[in-house]
Amino acid sequence: MSTDQPAARRARPSGRDARQKARSARPTGPAFITREIPPYELLSPEGLESIEAHADLLLEEIGLEVRGDPEAVRLWREAGARIVDGTRIHVPAGLAREIVRASAPREFIQHARNPARSVPIGGKHTVFAPAYGSPFVSDLERGRRYGTLEDFHNFIKLAYVSPWLHHSGGTVCEPVDVPVSRRHLDMVYAHMRYSDRAFMGSVTTAARAADSIEMCRVLFGTDFVDQNCVILGNVNVNSPLVLDGEASRVIRTYAAANQAPVCVPFILGGAMGPVTTAGGLAQCFAEATFCVALGQLERRGSPAILGNFLSSMSLRSGAPTFGTPEPALAYFAIGQLARRLGVPLRCGGNLCSSKVADAQAAVESANSMWPAMLAGANFVLHSAGWLEAGLTMSYEKFVMDVDQCGGFHTLARGMALDDNGFALGAFREIGPGRHYLGSAHTMANYETAFHDFALADNNSFEQWTADGSEDLLKRANRRWKAMLESYEAPPLDVAIDEALCDYMERRKLSLPDEIG
Amino acid sequence: MSTDQPAARRARPSGRDARQKARSARPTGPAFITREIPPYELLSPEGLESIEAHADLLLEEIGLEVRGDPEAVRLWREAGARIVDGTRIHVPAGLAREIVRASAPREFIQHARNPARSVPIGGKHTVFAPAYGSPFVSDLERGRRYGTLEDFHNFIKLAYVSPWLHHSGGTVCEPVDVPVSRRHLDMVYAHMRYSDRAFMGSVTTAARAADSIEMCRVLFGTDFVDQNCVILGNVNVNSPLVLDGEASRVIRTYAAANQAPVCVPFILGGAMGPVTTAGGLAQCFAEATFCVALGQLERRGSPAILGNFLSSMSLRSGAPTFGTPEPALAYFAIGQLARRLGVPLRCGGNLCSSKVADAQAAVESANSMWPAMLAGANFVLHSAGWLEAGLTMSYEKFVMDVDQCGGFHTLARGMALDDNGFALGAFREIGPGRHYLGSAHTMANYETAFHDFALADNNSFEQWTADGSEDLLKRANRRWKAMLESYEAPPLDVAIDEALCDYMERRKLSLPDEIG
Repeated sequence: MSTDQPAARRARPSGRDARQKARSARPTGPAFITREIPPYELLSPEGLESIEAHADLLLEEIGLEVRGDPEAVRLWREAGARIVDGTRIHVPAGLAREIVRASAPREFIQHARNPARSVPIGGKHTVFAPAYGSPFVSDLERGRRYGTLEDFHNFIKLAYVSPWLHHSGGTVCEPVDVPVSRRHLDMVYAHMRYSDRAFMGSVTTAARAADSIEMCRVLFGTDFVDQNCVILGNVNVNSPLVLDGEASRVIRTYAAANQAPVCVPFILGGAMGPVTTAGGLAQCFAEATFCVALGQLERRGSPAILGNFLSSMSLRSGAPTFGTPEPALAYFAIGQLARRLGVPLRCGGNLCSSKVADAQAAVESANSMWPAMLAGANFVLHSAGWLEAGLTMSYEKFVMDVDQCGGFHTLARGMALDDNGFALGAFREIGPGRHYLGSAHTMANYETAFHDFALADNNSFEQWTADGSEDLLKRANRRWKAMLESYEAPPLDVAIDEALCDYMERRKLSLPDEIG
Repeated sequence: MSTDQPAARRARPSGRDARQKARSARPTGPAFITREIPPYELLSPEGLESIEAHADLLLEEIGLEVRGDPEAVRLWREAGARIVDGTRIHVPAGLAREIVRASAPREFIQHARNPARSVPIGGKHTVFAPAYGSPFVSDLERGRRYGTLEDFHNFIKLAYVSPWLHHSGGTVCEPVDVPVSRRHLDMVYAHMRYSDRAFMGSVTTAARAADSIEMCRVLFGTDFVDQNCVILGNVNVNSPLVLDGEASRVIRTYAAANQAPVCVPFILGGAMGPVTTAGGLAQCFAEATFCVALGQLERRGSPAILGNFLSSMSLRSGAPTFGTPEPALAYFAIGQLARRLGVPLRCGGNLCSSKVADAQAAVESANSMWPAMLAGANFVLHSAGWLEAGLTMSYEKFVMDVDQCGGFHTLARGMALDDNGFALGAFREIGPGRHYLGSAHTMANYETAFHDFALADNNSFEQWTADGSEDLLKRANRRWKAMLESYEAPPLDVAIDEALCDYMERRKLSLPDEIG
């Protein structure tokens, strides 16, 4: 069932497959971003040291609780931490960062079953992945409703045909119509079957994480998985300063298999952390570094991503808020901290609290994406679809966000300061007072000049009125339908597909069918 | 009529005035922003030198045409430029920058009639001004229509009561119901009468610029105006590489009166400049530096702002586009160039091409504001209201933009790395696994923690539905009406008001009444 070769190298498409491939909608954009622009440096080196020192102080003096995972406690004790009451881990100042620095890779490849879609994670690279974890989905006609496996498939397909996403994501929505105990199998299978991009596995229990990895062994081959990262697991810290045993075991499960946990303190300031940004940031950095280090204690050299989910709240209502300036500042700083530490960084992308894909959703999302990009985030989860503080995955918002992701590709390329960029020939040709529309330089650069957002209406008011006075939401509604319509599945070796289904079936028989 | 004292110091409100003042809606926000965050450094010093060198090359080799202003040509000849055919000015490499560096102020104060509303322009300061120049206005009920003097007054009033704007702007919309020849008088008077913030004067002809300045002499006193900047004039270059005689005389009129021209190359790449960003940027910098230098040749030490309006276009339709990545990159670079030159920078703010205040408008605007802020722009024109590539001033968009301007105030403050910011006491109080809602630190920071956008709906889906499922546009509609309702005029000395009306009346009698 499993071999040493990734699936894509083993797939032998028939002549019919090849013809289908030629006319199908396949990803056309770049496989990832390599940033040619520098990150934004918000804080001075002294400021960064001060945050590191406060993070150290939290880990050393207050300590972090790991409840229900004695093995994690043992690993930390062996590494030099002081354990109090069996679960409280006091880490000597600097130790967590030292462990990370000693063995966590600065950059690694997450392999996709289509090698052309493998993504480098870390360094100057940025990878956009869809939103994650919403119980609800919505679209303009049907409104807001619980997500189903069909919706789950739809969002994988949309991510697959989106030119500006690089990753299939993970729980693109909760398929609430599938029992919780078995849901992870259907989700992982869907990523494998309906996309050939890299993806994320289950993190709700260590056993489900193990299932996710086992299915990767079927798809990629056991030895390949042992030597290469093929799956990410997005693990939330139970902030403040608690890692529950299940989350801890999930981190260790991914790390032990040489796969990458994404270690994400989930901090809404005022609830899971203090209301001031420096404190929340120090806490976030302490918790995330602790978790990345735990992965290293489990298996030195295994890949990991330092995550952050640090947002604000409305202190009047207790509701989480997004697109506010405080998390933007935190993004910039954690980008600097992650680079100093030498570990890839995850940020959230198009985050918002709006209930509908309106101007609020758009501006809040932009207020998150700009800081994520300029912070030098390596893995941008929630790049497309997120609505209502993450409770809803929206079809329209998805394609609106994807469109904006396109612009950041162009931004990341920076400014070409070469002869073509400076266009001296054009200035000499045109001189003062004439226009450049027909100049040789304009003609030569016609195809590549200026990013052209697919969903923006730049027409005259008269034309726009004649076209029905549609706002962006209505155009987005048409677009996601057209994209879904255009989808054709990437080929998957029949034997592997059967083996995956076989694995799922056996596992499902052994799992209870509680609905959740 | 005119005295040596600014009006605000002379106004003597009666007891009734004082009571009115107490209950009236007055600006409550800060008078300007002082940025505590560093600008974003996109290009290396070598990259910046390369742009300067190309700008030099354009001015020296191709030259800039000044058509119809022999005095400007004479000034440049005397300064060392080579003149060809009487109008083409070839400026030796480096000369324009040298002239600017020698005498243009790095920073100056634009005085408002209320001294508490005077704004510093340059350095680490950022000033937000409303959008400028739209022939149309729109609101949700009445749709798009030509602007009137009533609309003009309304937008001055809205800017006045907006907590996050710092400036009254200039042509907040075209009052199309007033004859073109007299319109400037009504516009300048309206800024003086209905606001006590700083404002901009007419630039359509040198005579109208002179009228604007003369009215300032009535308001502020002749000597005060001669020694202090009290008015800005936003002058567009007729790109590429042409400054028409009227624009040139307007620059000289403001400069001669020690007032500040804002020198703005208007370049849509592909039309008024090449389609590549480096070339457009070099052109923009060359043209703007040339104009700022011209002001210095007219009067050394007079204030000026280096402007830029460099955007992209859809090469398919020829329509201007906004919120695209190319002008964002240009903003960052021109910010660096302006700092090297030591002259205040104007950028555009909430720019968009959408016809309606929808998600497109919001994201395009954010895609312009983020670069403007991080570029370190000192004067952000078009911070509120702009729609449809500047053809429309929207009531709803105005208040939506103002709300976002608020967030940038908080961003600009940066991250406090002090004891309160790090919140060690709170961590010690709360420890692992408990929440911070009731902690002493949260209580102490309750009023100031987290920027709270007035228009964002962060409520639950259920609450939002119960409230009528409104999108941001509908909430914005209610908000501008409430703001306008709350407006009360700042007091204006009766004698000055009479003198201003007297001046206008005399001037109007001498001007023809062509409608335009």
